[in-house]
Formats: sequence, C-alpha cells, structure tokens
Amino acid sequence: MKTVIEYVLERLQALGINEVFGVAGDYAFPIEDAVCESGSLRWIGNCNELNAAYAADGYARIKGVAALSTTFGVGELSALNGLAGSYAEHLPVFHLVGMPASGVQKNHRLVHHTLGNGDFDVFYQMSQHLSCAHAILTPENCIDETERLIAAALKERRPVYMGFPSDYAVMPVIANGKHKKTESQKSDTQSLNAAVNAILDKLNASQQACIIPGILTARLGYSDDVQAIIDKTGLPYATMFMDKSIVSESNPTYMGIYNGKLMNAQVGEFVESCDCILGIGAVLTDFNSGSFTASISPEQRINILADQVKVGSAVYPNVMMKEVLDKLKILAPSLKHQGIAAQGLGEPRQGDNGQITAQYLYPRLEKMFKDDDIVIAETGTASMGLGFALLPKDAQFHNQTLWGSIGWATPAAFGAAIAAPNKRVILVTGEGSHQLTAQEISQFARFGLKPIIFVLNNDGYLIERLLCKEPEAYYNDLPQWNYAQLPAALGCTDWYCQKVTTCDELDAAIKHAEVTDSAAYIEIVMDRYAASDLAKKLGKSVASLYSF
Amino acid sequence: MKTVIEYVLERLQALGINEVFGVAGDYAFPIEDAVCESGSLRWIGNCNELNAAYAADGYARIKGVAALSTTFGVGELSALNGLAGSYAEHLPVFHLVGMPASGVQKNHRLVHHTLGNGDFDVFYQMSQHLSCAHAILTPENCIDETERLIAAALKERRPVYMGFPSDYAVMPVIANGKHKKTESQKSDTQSLNAAVNAILDKLNASQQACIIPGILTARLGYSDDVQAIIDKTGLPYATMFMDKSIVSESNPTYMGIYNGKLMNAQVGEFVESCDCILGIGAVLTDFNSGSFTASISPEQRINILADQVKVGSAVYPNVMMKEVLDKLKILAPSLKHQGIAAQGLGEPRQGDNGQITAQYLYPRLEKMFKDDDIVIAETGTASMGLGFALLPKDAQFHNQTLWGSIGWATPAAFGAAIAAPNKRVILVTGEGSHQLTAQEISQFARFGLKPIIFVLNNDGYLIERLLCKEPEAYYNDLPQWNYAQLPAALGCTDWYCQKVTTCDELDAAIKHAEVTDSAAYIEIVMDRYAASDLAKKLGKSVASLYSF
Repeated sequence: MKTVIEYVLERLQALGINEVFGVAGDYAFPIEDAVCESGSLRWIGNCNELNAAYAADGYARIKGVAALSTTFGVGELSALNGLAGSYAEHLPVFHLVGMPASGVQKNHRLVHHTLGNGDFDVFYQMSQHLSCAHAILTPENCIDETERLIAAALKERRPVYMGFPSDYAVMPVIANGKHKKTESQKSDTQSLNAAVNAILDKLNASQQACIIPGILTARLGYSDDVQAIIDKTGLPYATMFMDKSIVSESNPTYMGIYNGKLMNAQVGEFVESCDCILGIGAVLTDFNSGSFTASISPEQRINILADQVKVGSAVYPNVMMKEVLDKLKILAPSLKHQGIAAQGLGEPRQGDNGQITAQYLYPRLEKMFKDDDIVIAETGTASMGLGFALLPKDAQFHNQTLWGSIGWATPAAFGAAIAAPNKRVILVTGEGSHQLTAQEISQFARFGLKPIIFVLNNDGYLIERLLCKEPEAYYNDLPQWNYAQLPAALGCTDWYCQKVTTCDELDAAIKHAEVTDSAAYIEIVMDRYAASDLAKKLGKSVASLYSF
Repeated sequence: MKTVIEYVLERLQALGINEVFGVAGDYAFPIEDAVCESGSLRWIGNCNELNAAYAADGYARIKGVAALSTTFGVGELSALNGLAGSYAEHLPVFHLVGMPASGVQKNHRLVHHTLGNGDFDVFYQMSQHLSCAHAILTPENCIDETERLIAAALKERRPVYMGFPSDYAVMPVIANGKHKKTESQKSDTQSLNAAVNAILDKLNASQQACIIPGILTARLGYSDDVQAIIDKTGLPYATMFMDKSIVSESNPTYMGIYNGKLMNAQVGEFVESCDCILGIGAVLTDFNSGSFTASISPEQRINILADQVKVGSAVYPNVMMKEVLDKLKILAPSLKHQGIAAQGLGEPRQGDNGQITAQYLYPRLEKMFKDDDIVIAETGTASMGLGFALLPKDAQFHNQTLWGSIGWATPAAFGAAIAAPNKRVILVTGEGSHQLTAQEISQFARFGLKPIIFVLNNDGYLIERLLCKEPEAYYNDLPQWNYAQLPAALGCTDWYCQKVTTCDELDAAIKHAEVTDSAAYIEIVMDRYAASDLAKKLGKSVASLYSF
C-alpha cells in the first residue's frame, strides 16, 4: 500500500504535474524524500519560498496545474503572497505543507517554527483564506480528501492547502472500499438550454457583435473552444489587458487590446458601439478596464462565466461554461461582422542622441517576438508597454494584472521555463521589481535553461513616480546595482550579459541574444521618466484609479 | 491639527523609533509621504517586504521597538513570516499597512492587490493571528486606538497591526477631549508580596542556587535589573541558547550556556544539581533545552514571568515582573554560592592541510569579537557553533532560536546596523540561508554601513543533511554562487571581498577586515560536513527533537 504522501504525489502526477517547487525544511522531509524517491517527479529547490510560490504560479500558467512544498510556519507563511496571486488569478497550485508529527501537535510541544504558544493550527487557519479547499491529510481521510481537493482546485482554478503531519505522511493509506466519488458538476439542463437560446437570439439579432474572451477560459483549458467559436461566428474579437494572448493574436479577426478609453481608442470605440458583446469569462478590474474607463451597458452584454450565463439583465444559474461553449461551437451562427484590424506598435523610434526611449524599446521588443514565445512581463511600465505589442502565432503573454505583486515575474519566468523547456522564455522586468526576487535567476543556470532577460533600469520605481504626489520622493529610489555583473555572481557563468545605453547597443545585444546558444541578460538603461503610454495615462488618471 | 498618519508617526517617534522600514507601494503613499515629510524620521526602503520585516526585527532587538510599512495585500502578506518571527520572539514591531480608500472598500471595487472578490477584510483577518492588537485607523478612533496599540505592544512585546485607508490617513485627527488613558498594569499587592516572600524564603533556604535569566527580561528592558540581582546575590548564572548574552558574558559569576545534556556537560550538571534555580522569563523550547534534554523539577524552580511568578508548584498570578525585580534588587540576600567558570571555545585547531574545520572557525571567530560588538548568527550550524563562544563585555548575540526562519540573519543584521550605526555588526550565515535574502546586503552600502559578513559555504543545507534520513538527497543542494563577487554586483563596490579556503587565508582576511575602513564580505569554504558540535549532536537526537 502506498503511503499518504506517495498516494497524493501519484494523483498529482496524473494531473500532469512532473515537478514540485519549494524550499527544503525539516518538517517537510517526508514530502521531499517522497518526491526524490518517486523516480518520476523532480524536486525544484528555489532560493526562497516566495520565489517558489511565484515559480509554481508561472508553471501553472503553462501546464494548468502546479505543486509547491514548504515547511511548517516559516516556509508556508513566506509563500502566502505568491499563493494569494494564484488565488486572485485563478491558478490551481497544490500547496503541500510539512507539519510536525501529530503527537507533537497534540502535546502542544514548544518546538521550533511555532509561535511558542503550543498553537499548531494558526498557520492552517491563515492559509484557508487563500485556498479554495484545504485539509490535513491522515491515512484514513487521504483517498477521499485528495479527490475532494483535486476536484475543488480544478473547478475553481485556485490553490488548495494540504497539510502533512510528518508521521501520518509516511503511513500507508487506509482504503475502506467506500470512497466517495467526486463527480464533475453538470448544468441544469433547462437553464443551459435557455441560456444558449438567449445567446443565439441575441447574436442573430445583432447588427454589430464582437467577442471578448477572458482569462478564465484559458485557465479552465477552453482556449481551443473559444477559438472554434471565433472561427464559426467569424466575429471580430478583442481582449482586455489581463486576458492578452489567451487566443492567438495572429488570428485575422483579432482587433487588439480593449482598454476602455485609456488606450487603443479605435478598439474602444468599436467595442462600445457594438449591440452585442459576447464576453467569455471576462472581468472588469481596474487595470483590466483602463482604470474603470470601460463603458459597456448590460443591454449590450452577454457574459459566459464559470457556472452561470448573463444575457442582458437576465441571469441563467447552474450553467457550466464548458457545456455552453460545446453547444455554441455547433449552433453559433456565421455572422462575419466586420471589425477593425489589430495594430502593432509600429517602427521603433530612436530618441535624441540614440538614447533608449519607450517609443524605441517596446516596438523593438515586439519585432523580436517569434511564434510560440512565452513572454513574462513584470507589473509596471514594462507590462504596460508590452501589453500593446502584437504577438505572433501562439506566442503567450503573461502578467499578474490583478494581483500585481512586483517581483513575481522573475521566478514566474523560471517556473514557465521549467514547464516548457523547449520554448523560448523572454522575461521583461523593471529593475525595482527585479530586486525583490533577483536571486532566482541562479536557478535557470542550475537547471540548464536559457531565458532571454531584459532588465529595464530607470533608476527607481517608475510607475510609483508617475502615481504618487511627489515623483522625486526618495521612497521611489533604489540601491544601485551593477545588473550586468549579477548573473556571473549568481553562478550563471556562461551567460551573455550586457549593459546597453543606446538604441544601437540594444539592437546589437538583441541580435546576439537571438543567435547565441547561452542565456542572455540585458540591462537596458533608460531615462528616469521613460514611460510607456499606458503608464503615463494611468499617472494622469489617479482620480478614477483610487476613488470611487 | 495633525493628520491621522502624522499623529501616529509622532507617537512612534516618542517611543524611540527614528526609522521606518518597508517597500513603497501605491496604497501606502500617505504613510511614505508622511515619513519623508516629517523631517525627523527616515524611510528605509528595503529590497522586498520580507527583508523589511526581518530588518525591523533586527532593529527592535537593538532599540526595543521598530516600525514597518507595507502596502495592501501584496506587501503585507510578503512580510508575514518576518512578523511571525517577531511575534514568537517578543519583538514589538508596528506594522503600518496602507489600504485602499474607505469608499473603494465600501463599494467593493475590483482593484489591483485584491483577490478580485471585493473582500477588503481578508488580509486584516489573517494578520490578526500574528499581532497582539490591531486596528484600522480613522480620524475618530486614532487617538484612543493608537494608545491602546502602543500599550499592547509594549506590554506583550509583540507586533501590532495598524491599517490606514488612504483617505483617512491624511484627514486631521478628531480630538474629543474624552480620550481614555491607558494605564500600565499593576500587580495585585498581596500576591506580589507573597511571591517575593516565597522567592526570598527559597533563596535563603538554598544550599546551591543559580540564576537563569531569559530573553523576556531583555525584551522588556529589564537587563539592568537582572544584572543588579546577580550582583546583589552574588549567584552564578547560566543562560539558555535563545537567551545568550542578554546579560554580559564577561561577568565573573557567568557559567556559560545551559543546554540540557547535549552540550556543556559541566554547566548542565551544576544547574540540575541546584536546589534552587531562579528563572527570570526563561522558556524551555526544543532548541533552547538541548532538544528537550534539560531536566529541572518543579521543586527546584522559581520562575518570574511577565505577569506571574511560580515558586515550586505554587503560582502567584497578577504579579508584574518589573515590580518583583525592583523588590529583589533591594531584598535579595547575598549568597555568593560558588558556581563554575565559563569556558570559551579554546584555541582554534587547524585541520589537515590547513582546511577550515568547525574546530578552527568558531574559536577563531570568538577571538575576533570585541566589547560592544553585535553578532548576528543565522539559524543552523553557524549559530550552533557560535552560541558557545564566550563574548566580551557588552557584546550582543542575536539568533532566531525559536522561530528559526532561515534568511532572517542578513536583513536583521542590516536592521541592527541601522539601529546602532556606531557599533560593529558581524553577520555569520550559512550560504543556504544567505540565498533567501542576499540582495539585502546592497542596503548596507546604500546607507554607508560597514558590517563584517561571513558566509560559510559548505555546499548545501548542512543542518538538513544532519537531520534528514539521506544526507545526500538533492533537496539539500543549492545553486552554486560566486559569493565573493556578489557585493560588487549589488553595488557594494568598495567592499573588501575575499573567498578563503584555508585557515591561513581566513586569518589574513579577518585581520584585514578588522583594520580596513570598508565593509568586509568573506566567503569561507568548508567541507560539506564540517559541522559544529551542537549541530552534530542534534543530528543524533532526532528522536527527542521530532517525537514526544
């Protein structure tokens, strides 16, 4: 009979998880031992637990699911911010926490990694706020609880918490033959049919319709279904910021990013003048809606959500997204309404004296992107500049648009690279954000991965300079690092590292990075206020961003 | 009239807080602006929030109190593990959290740094588990709540949480003239007198007594009182591991570290053969008690705790430690029982071929310590080796013995250096722990501080190799860094950096570090299994460490 931890790891592997991220710790030895002894799973030791959580988040964006292991107290608390991001942005991460032995807990022993008050429940309580389901695993409950947690994670696409007291972890699971089956939730048939008919009626009556696919479709694994509906209807579509590239941007009916009235005026005008906007899992958050400047009335709107459909003001509950999409793939009409053509960023424009401006940088990066690239953009002026680049076929763009935790991008790029070792991973981060988690680049080298990393050095937290009342306040300043020396110090000894200050140098560095067989790390020195257009516009819209 | 945030900052300054650690973030702009505009407070921007929390912890160890500011959600969650350490180890850190405006919260707006569900209370709920008091500040409650939180922090010596909705933070406080006064708690007089008499009776009846002062006395600021009682009674004293150096180790009646039966056998035998052991705020946790090998019966024991006294099996409730100490300073008898002499680590012993062994390293470091040094030792074999060094007059030793979160030491040393810029700060860390938070060394250079940093490179997590079942399991491995190159890459360009592999090289590097006017960063390459004695003994006592 398998042990508790062996059983859980086998079930996770069946979901497509081949790697477990984490930091080793003594209470988690049974988990780490089982991973290493499995023969088929890989332990990916990160530099710290927050970085491990971010890496798991990046991995889940590529593979759909991920696993993270931390030790009791110190480890699990350090990972919380990363898990909160996965919760907010719908990424199922299985958080495996190694706990002191059950007897140590029952006897309230004063052991390390506790608050010294005999309370072994407090961290579990805290994590419950950031997981869609949670359990402490025992030999008796292991089979049922594992299935329950897997079902919850896959349905809600959010983290789950699995606690493993060290003695229970290595005991054989107890199978009692009466295990509950977790059945996938089905739609209410009547509600489903009514919802689909209402959608079809509204589409058929429309003079000008478009589609806005949202991130939830990608998270739930339905991107191909969405693509099929776009093809069948022939409708133009746009995505919002958070949802960028969830269906390929090379598709002929793609119009670009819809960002309310802040950016891409043509796209905004088209979308808001449609009499039917078919949203599929789209959400209007601040950065997703152009700082709340998006304006779509309920009458214009259809929205297919995870388990309900809204058509105008009507709500159809208990309707599963997948079943709606399956019906629409067959029944949706061919409408072929004319949209507008997606615009890229155009030609890079050099600044005076060749310095690297935002008007040069982002168009130049757009030119280098290739089919199937994975682009990880850090929150801030970098993501806001790259978000409007037009990506080639099946290139992916990832950003933490809702949670927006700076530092996420560097370890998330590592997690993505582990998940897709044969794809080109391009990380674009500001230097302020990079400082939070920079040590994680050492892991790329350790695992033989070859990312292309761009660090935009503009001498401070630029997005904050644009948003705060006194841009030169010294809380926006940073210690000065010599970024181009950092990879070598962190053991990435054969990387191509460059510091560039002019467009020509940037050009040469990109060309070299594209052909070299090593990883590349390019520090791009820019003016303190060289901001992308969206970043500048956000700076001017603080009233709508922070008030109500 | 002062604004809410101005009022709070002024009150914190009156407690001795001159610096606020943190990472800038948009919802916390009002806090950061007020710090920078105060003219008398300094904003210390850390590389990330966990590092900021650790730095605040280090600062509080030196100054008694500290302040930390983070932004909503992303920032505060990243800091939680650091705050949990401060909670466990009794350090009052004021956690100032910038929140979205009250109207944004009331309207459940879908803004960045939220979970996307309109819940603005969730992170506050989580933090309540790790703070001894908490409040969301408003103009109306500001005066009363600030006093309540300060009183709680100073009494319990644990973190408090103060949330600042961004609009409330900049409104004038409302003084209504009826503010509650927070009075310091007084002892029950009868219980106090009974407790003191019982202590005196037990001391006077004793044939062989000793004192074991605990960390809580230092945290509460009573080290001088403890010293006075030691002087008045003339009794020998020992400290446990967590309590090392809370009274000066140069005192003639100091016996050394009491670590149960694991280490310092002579001290253990003496302590456990006493008929009266006067504990003052001492706690028997796993690493504090020699992996639970300490054995003191209730009959032998007096323990003066924060608000109660135990003498034998009798408990005297509602008795404040300070009042007991004040009475004992006057009433305690002069006993002058003979103890044993404290032993240092002896002469450094070179390994074969001059390689750096534990038997060389820790005695050599002991030799370099000077009066008033602040030694910060990371959890692991480093702290376990240094813990038994005998420190000169008023030298301080800090380690996170109970919480034991690796990575703590590097930022904590930075916080200590900010708190005591005129003292020599010596950081000793293993390389595995250093990797979690290494970027924080850039802050020493940025703020003109000159620590001496030793990074013990033994190719992995050594303490885990000693504790786990398969020492060579690859989860104990690390990416290989070139540590001596790291300071330059992180902007510490004028530091003295050396990698040493022999005793002679180590000697030369220490001598240079002692006289140079710059900071020093010395990578000490040791054998994978070069462990301090305590670390080895813990490895052999896993049964008592992990079971019950």
